Amino acid sequence: MSTQDRFFIDRLAIVGVGLIGGSLALALKEAGCVGEVTGIGRGLPNLNLALELGVVDKITRELEEGVQQADVVFLATPVMTIPDLARRVLPAMKPGAILTDGGSVKGEIVERIEPYLSGEVAFVPGHPIAGTEKSGAAAAFPTLYRDRRCILTPTERTPAAATALIRRMWETVGSEVVVMDVDKHDRILAAISHLPHMIAYTLVNAVGSYDHFEENILEYSAGGFRDFTRIASSDPAMWRDIALSNRQALLEMLERYENFLGELKRDIAAADGQKLFEFFLNSKTLRDAIL
Amino acid sequence: MSTQDRFFIDRLAIVGVGLIGGSLALALKEAGCVGEVTGIGRGLPNLNLALELGVVDKITRELEEGVQQADVVFLATPVMTIPDLARRVLPAMKPGAILTDGGSVKGEIVERIEPYLSGEVAFVPGHPIAGTEKSGAAAAFPTLYRDRRCILTPTERTPAAATALIRRMWETVGSEVVVMDVDKHDRILAAISHLPHMIAYTLVNAVGSYDHFEENILEYSAGGFRDFTRIASSDPAMWRDIALSNRQALLEMLERYENFLGELKRDIAAADGQKLFEFFLNSKTLRDAIL
Ligand SMILES: NC(=O)c1ccc[n+]([C@@H]2O[C@H](COP(=O)([O-])OP(=O)(O)OC[C@H]3O[C@@H](n4cnc5c(N)ncnc54)[C@H](OP(=O)(O)O)[C@@H]3O)[C@@H](O)[C@H]2O)c1
Ligand SMILES: NC(=O)c1ccc[n+]([C@@H]2O[C@H](COP(=O)([O-])OP(=O)(O)OC[C@H]3O[C@@H](n4cnc5c(N)ncnc54)[C@H](OP(=O)(O)O)[C@@H]3O)[C@@H](O)[C@H]2O)c1
Repeated sequence: MSTQDRFFIDRLAIVGVGLIGGSLALALKEAGCVGEVTGIGRGLPNLNLALELGVVDKITRELEEGVQQADVVFLATPVMTIPDLARRVLPAMKPGAILTDGGSVKGEIVERIEPYLSGEVAFVPGHPIAGTEKSGAAAAFPTLYRDRRCILTPTERTPAAATALIRRMWETVGSEVVVMDVDKHDRILAAISHLPHMIAYTLVNAVGSYDHFEENILEYSAGGFRDFTRIASSDPAMWRDIALSNRQALLEMLERYENFLGELKRDIAAADGQKLFEFFLNSKTLRDAIL
Repeated sequence: MSTQDRFFIDRLAIVGVGLIGGSLALALKEAGCVGEVTGIGRGLPNLNLALELGVVDKITRELEEGVQQADVVFLATPVMTIPDLARRVLPAMKPGAILTDGGSVKGEIVERIEPYLSGEVAFVPGHPIAGTEKSGAAAAFPTLYRDRRCILTPTERTPAAATALIRRMWETVGSEVVVMDVDKHDRILAAISHLPHMIAYTLVNAVGSYDHFEENILEYSAGGFRDFTRIASSDPAMWRDIALSNRQALLEMLERYENFLGELKRDIAAADGQKLFEFFLNSKTLRDAIL
């Protein structure tokens, strides 16, 4: 990569050219901060689409070959696949290159990748806090990361210079970069992202299967319900992986949430208007502060 | 009201000129289907605003006086206040006029109003399934009811002609009218509206009070969380009233939801990927069907 002050990645390899990987490629291209982008995947349909849409400049299904020349390799495949891909990618990368990822869970990924680090290639674990419920190369768009946060969770084994470069990469595409430890990342994400998805999926299942009236009561849902449950349209395989790989933190958050729900239920059962009002007002105040 | 085929209400009184009452007035005006609209409220600031914005043509704080000439009186104040207002309004209304309401809960309202019906004035309980998290006359807009459903829950005491007229009123403003019994309304609403609000309020409280990290973790929330919790910005007093007046159905739905959540939690704890995938896929399928 260029060592001038201006940020530039000569050769970038994206493994998994979907929403997250594809959007990074598009954003870096739009910023004029990347040379050649190689898209690596399993299947030709998505890779060909990525090529047609100009998301990447070259495509290949040969993982090791695809990453050989890269200065930066970005793993953007489902969480569960990242460690194995990293294990294969690391020995094929050139010395001094940087491996980074965008997986939504960091603890499991870091734990399973670090044993394979040789010291020749740096690994910077990352997670852009951005997304939609769409997937694949067709879902990618260059402004996805603008005004979003990106969390990096370097460990003792991550060279500071590598973290600095990946930080600049995300800043270049418009994100505010926050560095924190792996455990903190996984707890925060469990709270603000993984728990809400579990809740949305559960709500839709609980309501959608309510067959008391021989008609689909979801037909009665208005805007509020539809907005509220939009995240229940997210990819089931991705969320299975996230739930499995962030199990501990997610279970803790679920328990915390259940306690609050139990409190609310007791207040409703007791018809305690004052407590209910306070509960709702407290929530509205917290919510309005992040509007 | 006019008895010609064209639908027209000569004199309409709106008690509570907020989002729901104000939007009905604006929509009927836009459709050219109403003569004079009187806005009735407690406080002058909101009433004056309603007058200025052209939501109503006349304003008064004198309830009985305000409804005297009306052919249709629409009660659109908080749920808990509707029965008492109806009790005062009914004897002041002229024979043959129709009282209707827009309260989000129907069982409690019907139960508390029916004892006061003399037979001179018809009461048509109603509930437009439309809304935003804003309130007051300033929040009203004429297209709120377009392409929405409106549920009417007439009882044995409701004359069919009155139901027919209120049905036309809602159809005139763009809604599809569905007639069902009171109990069914309250259960469906508990499922698709009241439960989601409880869940959103609970989520924001559970996450917003998580103080493990000495920073407000809500700051990390991205678009998904914000959309998901938008309904937690709704008026706490309104939702206290709804939770209290639809207690039974809501508690049943909460229990149903807790059972589903318990199942999900067990599957996460057991790391049962297959069950998790099915749970999420089932939800996505149900959700995508109402997109
Ligand atoms: N969506 C979000 O909101 C979001 C936000 C932040 C982070 N993330 C993380 O970003 C990563 C990618 O998510 P995404 O939303 O971009 O998903 P996506 O749109 O489905 O893209 C993932 C890509 O990875 C490839 N892939 C899928 N399964 C694979 C497998 N088993 N082995 C190798 N490659 C595979 C696919 O391309 P081929 O078919 O060509 O192989 C696919 O295009 C995940 O780790 C996710 O946790 C997602
Ligand atoms: N918002 C929704 O999503 C939605 C959807 C469907 C049905 N509803 C139902 O519609 C009704 C009105 O809701 P909204 O959203 O229109 O609320 P809103 O915007 O707050 O309007 C209610 C109006 O009622 C008056 N009011 C408030 N408290 C009162 C009291 N204690 N006694 C008499 N009048 C009072 C207020 O005007 P003054 O200050 O001038 O008195 C206020 O403008 C409620 O029964 C609600 O359940 C709401």
